[in-house]
Amino acid sequence: MAAVALVQGASRGLGFEFCRYLLLNKSPAAVIATCRNPDAAQHLAALSAQEDDIKRAAESVKAAFGKVDLIINSSAMLHPSGKGETSLRDVSAQAIISTLTTNTVGPLVMAKYSAPLLQKGTGAFGQQFPEKEKQHSGIIVNMTARVGSIGDNAFGGWYSYRMSKAALNMATRNLSIELGRGRSKIVCVSLHPGTVNTDLSRPYHRNVPKDKLFSTEYSVQCLMNIIDTLNIDKTGKAYAWDSTEIPW
Amino acid sequence: MAAVALVQGASRGLGFEFCRYLLLNKSPAAVIATCRNPDAAQHLAALSAQEDDIKRAAESVKAAFGKVDLIINSSAMLHPSGKGETSLRDVSAQAIISTLTTNTVGPLVMAKYSAPLLQKGTGAFGQQFPEKEKQHSGIIVNMTARVGSIGDNAFGGWYSYRMSKAALNMATRNLSIELGRGRSKIVCVSLHPGTVNTDLSRPYHRNVPKDKLFSTEYSVQCLMNIIDTLNIDKTGKAYAWDSTEIPW
Ligand SMILES: NC(=O)c1ccc[n+]([C@@H]2O[C@H](COP(=O)([O-])OP(=O)(O)OC[C@H]3O[C@@H](n4cnc5c(N)ncnc54)[C@H](OP(=O)(O)O)[C@@H]3O)[C@@H](O)[C@H]2O)c1
Ligand SMILES: NC(=O)c1ccc[n+]([C@@H]2O[C@H](COP(=O)([O-])OP(=O)(O)OC[C@H]3O[C@@H](n4cnc5c(N)ncnc54)[C@H](OP(=O)(O)O)[C@@H]3O)[C@@H](O)[C@H]2O)c1
Repeated sequence: MAAVALVQGASRGLGFEFCRYLLLNKSPAAVIATCRNPDAAQHLAALSAQEDDIKRAAESVKAAFGKVDLIINSSAMLHPSGKGETSLRDVSAQAIISTLTTNTVGPLVMAKYSAPLLQKGTGAFGQQFPEKEKQHSGIIVNMTARVGSIGDNAFGGWYSYRMSKAALNMATRNLSIELGRGRSKIVCVSLHPGTVNTDLSRPYHRNVPKDKLFSTEYSVQCLMNIIDTLNIDKTGKAYAWDSTEIPW
Repeated sequence: MAAVALVQGASRGLGFEFCRYLLLNKSPAAVIATCRNPDAAQHLAALSAQEDDIKRAAESVKAAFGKVDLIINSSAMLHPSGKGETSLRDVSAQAIISTLTTNTVGPLVMAKYSAPLLQKGTGAFGQQFPEKEKQHSGIIVNMTARVGSIGDNAFGGWYSYRMSKAALNMATRNLSIELGRGRSKIVCVSLHPGTVNTDLSRPYHRNVPKDKLFSTEYSVQCLMNIIDTLNIDKTGKAYAWDSTEIPW
């Protein structure tokens, strides 16, 4: 069967471009594009309903394809206001929780319900080792950000976003360990796309030198080049668009 | 004026022992012990009310003492069930959010409302440099855990707890940067207490060799020894009870 990829957060930005890229360049791959239901209540109380939504989405993918080879968790926000906190004064419990819910909890719950489908994957993405015992069945990509690196943090600010990505990197690490065992291995990495011309980074575009502000096409091409060479030895790490490893 | 320390999560375990230690050994220090209101609704919807509680607590400390020299953020849970997730199957959105709210958001909101009081601190804790421009006014201690280190994570599991502590370590780092600037510097570190005989670790005591399971008295003595030598050059890092640095 052809490759099956699932892109979560496909309505805009990088998630959208991942879908376009996969359809153009990896056909006859099936691309499952998911996005939030814009009508769904955004209330925290609806969390377990959201979990049910993700569960049901996984069930229908299972019924339709029986497997997934690649999952890209792309949804995220900088902050509910659209701009990261510049100082502690801007921090609020409500905003951190919203950001953590979207950027961290969402991807982990996606991984939970997709893991059985990825274990049924046929290793259609990444690079397979010749040895059967080192081959992988599926790949999980969590979209992270360099500012989510604790060790690399020199400027501070952006509390909610930075914390959400640090926690997401821990999820990547945990997933790589749990899902790297056994016969059906899943490779799990965090990828940083560079600074990309999307809504998310829009408030900061003025400050970015033109050649440092990537198009979604360029960024996704770089990230797909990384994905194409992933194997189980590269699991559990964070990589930037240029393939360099990012410290935790 | 005498030293003023605030211990958040003082009802049990290490937080309780920090209060006892400070009262015994650092008198005439004032120790402000805070704990949650056990009657307060534990609902996520009540988040901004909780933030108001913390704000009001800071206001009454300000009225009573006008400053704080040391804040210890000690509250945490492993998971609402009392036991960390052993596999992805145990993960739920609701439980991660509860754990993140208590372990990560709580300490950061505490820091937000205490920072102005710590900036009025008189540097009664830690070790002061002779040079005025390197002296600190206050100290924030976020209680972390070695399992919150992404780089040190070899076994996986405990998703909610590990992610909450990784995000807390990012908060420590961010706070150390923002509050380390200017004239009234606040030192901010994450401290790992070892494995300590408290309710939090109780489900796992059987698996811990007796000499590796610390009493709260011993652990707090070790941590206070670290706190006594803190200065602005040591800010923004995570240390274990034996003073060794923990990687992110
Ligand atoms: N752009 C950059 O410079 C940059 C840099 C570093 C890392 N990243 C990371 O790259 C990934 C993609 O970002 P992007 O630049 O493509 O962002 P984007 O253009 O703003 O798109 C964000 C996507 O996330 C979804 N989303 C936002 N809030 C959500 C919520 N509360 N619930 C569910 N879905 C939600 C959006 O869906 P709706 O259309 O329904 O809102 C949209 O599909 C993110 O993880 C981001 O952190 C981006
Ligand atoms: N014990 C260990 O082996 C160990 C190891 C590594 C790190 N740590 C860290 O050390 C710190 C202290 O832990 P401990 O061993 O002293 O734990 P503990 O004995 O279980 O005490 C936990 C404290 O946190 C408070 N708390 C729990 N859930 C809360 C919530 N939802 N809202 C507000 N407060 C809440 C408790 O208040 P109530 O009494 O009201 O429940 C209590 O004061 C924690 O940050 C923990 O992660 C402990």
